[in-house]
Amino acid sequence: MSHNSFGHLFRVTTWGESHGPALGCVVDGCPPGLKLTAEDIQVWLDKRRPGQGKFVTQRQEPDAVRILSGVFEDDRTREQFGGQVTTGTPISLMIENVDQRSKDYSEIARAFRPGHADWPYFAKYGVRDYRGGGRASARETAARVAAGAVARKVIEGVTVRGALVQIGPHKIDRSRWDWDETTNNPYWSPDARIVPVWEEHLEKIRKAGSSTGAVVEVEAVGVPAGWGAPLYGKLDAELAAALMSINAVKGVEIGAGFESAELTGEENADQIRMGNDGPIFLSNKAGGVLGGMSSGQPVVARVAFKPTSSILTPRETVNEDGQEIELRTKGRHDPCVGIRAVPVVEAMTACVLADAFLRHRGQTGGGAFRPGSSERA
Amino acid sequence: MSHNSFGHLFRVTTWGESHGPALGCVVDGCPPGLKLTAEDIQVWLDKRRPGQGKFVTQRQEPDAVRILSGVFEDDRTREQFGGQVTTGTPISLMIENVDQRSKDYSEIARAFRPGHADWPYFAKYGVRDYRGGGRASARETAARVAAGAVARKVIEGVTVRGALVQIGPHKIDRSRWDWDETTNNPYWSPDARIVPVWEEHLEKIRKAGSSTGAVVEVEAVGVPAGWGAPLYGKLDAELAAALMSINAVKGVEIGAGFESAELTGEENADQIRMGNDGPIFLSNKAGGVLGGMSSGQPVVARVAFKPTSSILTPRETVNEDGQEIELRTKGRHDPCVGIRAVPVVEAMTACVLADAFLRHRGQTGGGAFRPGSSERA
Amino acid sequence: MSHNSFGHLFRVTTWGESHGPALGCVVDGCPPGLKLTAEDIQVWLDKRRPGQGKFVTQRQEPDAVRILSGVFEDDRTREQFGGQVTTGTPISLMIENVDQRSKDYSEIARAFRPGHADWPYFAKYGVRDYRGGGRASARETAARVAAGAVARKVIEGVTVRGALVQIGPHKIDRSRWDWDETTNNPYWSPDARIVPVWEEHLEKIRKAGSSTGAVVEVEAVGVPAGWGAPLYGKLDAELAAALMSINAVKGVEIGAGFESAELTGEENADQIRMGNDGPIFLSNKAGGVLGGMSSGQPVVARVAFKPTSSILTPRETVNEDGQEIELRTKGRHDPCVGIRAVPVVEAMTACVLADAFLRHRGQTGGGAFRPGSSERA
Amino acid sequence: MSHNSFGHLFRVTTWGESHGPALGCVVDGCPPGLKLTAEDIQVWLDKRRPGQGKFVTQRQEPDAVRILSGVFEDDRTREQFGGQVTTGTPISLMIENVDQRSKDYSEIARAFRPGHADWPYFAKYGVRDYRGGGRASARETAARVAAGAVARKVIEGVTVRGALVQIGPHKIDRSRWDWDETTNNPYWSPDARIVPVWEEHLEKIRKAGSSTGAVVEVEAVGVPAGWGAPLYGKLDAELAAALMSINAVKGVEIGAGFESAELTGEENADQIRMGNDGPIFLSNKAGGVLGGMSSGQPVVARVAFKPTSSILTPRETVNEDGQEIELRTKGRHDPCVGIRAVPVVEAMTACVLADAFLRHRGQTGGGAFRPGSSERA
Repeated sequence: MSHNSFGHLFRVTTWGESHGPALGCVVDGCPPGLKLTAEDIQVWLDKRRPGQGKFVTQRQEPDAVRILSGVFEDDRTREQFGGQVTTGTPISLMIENVDQRSKDYSEIARAFRPGHADWPYFAKYGVRDYRGGGRASARETAARVAAGAVARKVIEGVTVRGALVQIGPHKIDRSRWDWDETTNNPYWSPDARIVPVWEEHLEKIRKAGSSTGAVVEVEAVGVPAGWGAPLYGKLDAELAAALMSINAVKGVEIGAGFESAELTGEENADQIRMGNDGPIFLSNKAGGVLGGMSSGQPVVARVAFKPTSSILTPRETVNEDGQEIELRTKGRHDPCVGIRAVPVVEAMTACVLADAFLRHRGQTGGGAFRPGSSERA
Repeated sequence: MSHNSFGHLFRVTTWGESHGPALGCVVDGCPPGLKLTAEDIQVWLDKRRPGQGKFVTQRQEPDAVRILSGVFEDDRTREQFGGQVTTGTPISLMIENVDQRSKDYSEIARAFRPGHADWPYFAKYGVRDYRGGGRASARETAARVAAGAVARKVIEGVTVRGALVQIGPHKIDRSRWDWDETTNNPYWSPDARIVPVWEEHLEKIRKAGSSTGAVVEVEAVGVPAGWGAPLYGKLDAELAAALMSINAVKGVEIGAGFESAELTGEENADQIRMGNDGPIFLSNKAGGVLGGMSSGQPVVARVAFKPTSSILTPRETVNEDGQEIELRTKGRHDPCVGIRAVPVVEAMTACVLADAFLRHRGQTGGGAFRPGSSERA
Repeated sequence: MSHNSFGHLFRVTTWGESHGPALGCVVDGCPPGLKLTAEDIQVWLDKRRPGQGKFVTQRQEPDAVRILSGVFEDDRTREQFGGQVTTGTPISLMIENVDQRSKDYSEIARAFRPGHADWPYFAKYGVRDYRGGGRASARETAARVAAGAVARKVIEGVTVRGALVQIGPHKIDRSRWDWDETTNNPYWSPDARIVPVWEEHLEKIRKAGSSTGAVVEVEAVGVPAGWGAPLYGKLDAELAAALMSINAVKGVEIGAGFESAELTGEENADQIRMGNDGPIFLSNKAGGVLGGMSSGQPVVARVAFKPTSSILTPRETVNEDGQEIELRTKGRHDPCVGIRAVPVVEAMTACVLADAFLRHRGQTGGGAFRPGSSERA
Repeated sequence: MSHNSFGHLFRVTTWGESHGPALGCVVDGCPPGLKLTAEDIQVWLDKRRPGQGKFVTQRQEPDAVRILSGVFEDDRTREQFGGQVTTGTPISLMIENVDQRSKDYSEIARAFRPGHADWPYFAKYGVRDYRGGGRASARETAARVAAGAVARKVIEGVTVRGALVQIGPHKIDRSRWDWDETTNNPYWSPDARIVPVWEEHLEKIRKAGSSTGAVVEVEAVGVPAGWGAPLYGKLDAELAAALMSINAVKGVEIGAGFESAELTGEENADQIRMGNDGPIFLSNKAGGVLGGMSSGQPVVARVAFKPTSSILTPRETVNEDGQEIELRTKGRHDPCVGIRAVPVVEAMTACVLADAFLRHRGQTGGGAFRPGSSERA
């Protein structure tokens, strides 16, 4: 509550429209004493920035983030922490909108673009900022990525990384999975061989003025057992909400996900052996979450992105006056929004984990019990 | 916040373990003046009750609900409302546990059953009520169903109904979908022809002491446009959290869901025409939600249930002492927990919608703008 | 949110009316591994129980609390913790209403008693349970006291204790303050000499069928520095809300409170010296809270209770039909509700501190920095 | 939750330090369609601006507010609403810090100023921005006033106005109360005759390098019956938290407040007669709140401000190294922070009421029942 905040102890509140003066977020509840500079955040923003490839929108935004509050640097912080650190007060992050290309919006100002949120915005509020998608613009995800950069500081030791595993009907070959590969191609693909297939598909889509969906997979490695909570504060329920809140997402699954519906109990239940540092699982159908709490295995989720509805083919729709019209969405658009979404999915995952970590520490004091010991460690 | 509440204005807090004296929930924020008796709730509880079919657990619980607070009846309420009504104060619902079969738990008291939450419970809390699954028992869903019955009263005019669309690898034929059929068979199947296939599959699973997953589909018909909110309070994000919070759920999708990843923009964006009461959509790939807000179309979600991990085949695991052991889960268990989950999925959907309705009314005053009018109606 | 919950990480949700079958609360977020039995709670409930003195209501309720969930006991908990302990899941507490004296409510069923909440209940909800005050009954405070008993377990090492410092115009002599005295008289007075004065005053009030206000003071000793948070999560702001939420409270002050308006900066700012365990203050005008965070000094608050509006003198009012009437409130009532409120004020203070402790631990990891050290301890 | 947000449906999140680049807030949940320009907010900010009188700090800040999001203007909004309106998305407000006078902070950088929050900030966070008070600066109240300006739009028809009723030991004569007078003098006094007394007192305080406390009274006229909620969502409990969260506040009372402790039930319970538009009260000891809900009478609260601890007299204290030192606080400071607090108290009151209005509308649909009718109006 209300409608633009996320998280409980690590709480992010975002604001901003595509064509307003700026957008940003306030990160409240961040622990003090974490080294944090604008550069630490900028590096993640640069990864999601438009204008980086042939198949992402050509809008050119530097997306330069400013930290307006919540950090401090003096001689003592330099000596004690090595530089500027968080103070525990709210961190306000702002990204100015500089490429608000002057444009004639008269065609869509009163029309409801099919597949877009225009109609329910009108129905609910009666007024909406239609310029560049307004609040519903993909630009809003910059605030998520910025917050995620702070979250990563909170969960130091946990690696959150994402990959694109499907574009349109073309899925990667999971047996070829190589994380290093994800930074070698502009599609975050962990499978080098799929890249030319995707490029051909995207080229065809782009030429047709069409768009295509995609699936992103994210994993968090290094999450200790016990984060999250049973039933209503489940780690996977929080993840599901966080990921479903990203624009264009239509599905979220954890571990084996929808495939688990087809499995038997024997196939699905991950068996356990004892390792040096606690239980070791022989498989990870659970996706690292059991009963809503992390098991110590990598937390794994997949997210389905629909194809953007901004396409060049004329489509039937109506407008605010109730007239039936045909509409063609012009402008700078991604043929596959899923590509740019990888850093966003990572960021939301990091935010959920940071919140889970702080809440776990609040209720229990932190750490976890290990088999063979009656002490929290 | 904390960990056992759900919703904002329509807020449900649940409590209870499988083998404690009782379980229940508190429904806070319910509007006043709604007719509500224990029978109104009991009818939904009876639908999820164990012991109703060959393929659900044989545990016999009457699951009789008591309303402990929040309702009132006198001559005037009888005259004005026709009987007992909600007063706007918190509604406490309690279901006593009567069939806590005396049992020897020594075998699992200190073991971590594979696929169960035993291990993370131990890791997080260091202590857990292992009797009958404790807090993680499927019995907890009775509280959800009870709360959902109250939620249905809040969103009068909206029909929330669920169906089972897949058991193991066997999916229904969607072209045969008949809602009436769902009450004709014990599996909530909308396709009569799949029933014998499922029965054969379940019989095989049961004999093997195994279990199978399933997929539940839920739809809410009659939801007006404008419920939900953009981005972080998205109706589909709240739904995703609510459904993922049900035990054994591993995936949630809205509308076309994961299939939308394979579609083009033309295939995916639902075109719009003008009807007598507002926009009419030519398809519902969006599942009734655009930009996080209801579009006026039926809200449609699908939920993947994993097979229960309580199976008769011995499985490798460890115990609290760090010893590697083999474990076989005996007892009364569902071979397919997805069957009994249908009323639970419905209930959670109703709770999300009731909350969205009240929040929408809070921020906007309620109602929606219609094309061709500048008035909220 | 919604309207009957309190706290964030240590979160209490209450329910129940005076003449329903029961009342109670759910305590969510309690840390695991704390020893807790019904007796641990009962001891505090017994302190607030009606029927203990001449000047408190003669209603006889055993107020026997039952723990319905959230605790567990087996051989291992007995060995490791010494008995039954909290498990980290929600603790449901219930107190059955056994003395719902059959009574004719026809006189007040439709009347708005002056000074009572009847009128706004009617205005807001249109329906209300008027029997014994319904939800607004002082019985509701039993749930607060029960929750407070759990909270005390969470903040072990902190002593929360209250005293009555004023009844009507008669204030105690603070120079005679003796905490031991508070258990020697039925008025929680720390000043033995005021007791006969109060008794005479109360006898006069009782004979006149009137009522009188009072002031309760509460202090929490042993709160370490750093609990609470600046500005919107201030410890004193949370305390103010918690204490003002008790029925009949009309004012809350911290430390010097309203008196501080008359002071100069020199008189008000507590000077500091260095002690063995950190800063020592030469006075406590701040009431143990600086900038919303605990300073390490005792946290001190005072709470003003109005006289109950249930008096025998006929009073002018109106009823639900809009008729002007005269009303005399009969029944079992306290001439001074402030007396019984002392354990309630203590309980709410304990709940606020438990929540502050968990939130502090969540954000920072717990503990505090000390002068001369750069480590948290 | 977390620590820098306030409200539920009308939710304000603030950020910013005194000497950072800017400060501001995000107002989430504001209803759409409300006319709102920067000027509408600026007018209230100008009222609290420093540098306006002899007895307020001479720091010169234009405090120019910018609206960064959440509003929209085009031809249609001009036609339909008369200009720029809220869109229902989060409203981001920013005020740049322009007068960050370069200064040597070496003396206080590591010292704990008595009566200030320096020590608990250090204890809790281990690091703090000491420049100009950092987050604890009175500048933060600019964000409150800006949010309050938006809140006033939400509760159109309700007048929220404040007055100073006491400076040091000098109280106004309430029989002379004249609201018009509050804008005729720089002290918000409703009693013209007290002004020279206060001026003399303040002059004496200023010359002594000292400071003095004060009491602010606020009332909200036009609040309909039924806002707020019983027990834990009480309107007066929310007000108490909101007002206590303002820096330097040490006490809050509603209606008769602490005086009610001295009254009898007959004196305290406001009698009721029937007016044309519903109940009329013959007095307002309750301060417009009964059982946590508004009664339709003016809502009245009083707030005690302590004297600022920034005084010229050397005071004993310790520093971060644990050394005992003497400290004299130099710089630009108010001898009486209560004076500038009047618009802040008004703003917080407006925010609480806006939230209560939206929550009331959410749960009940809005409006209130009136005696003699069974319809909500």
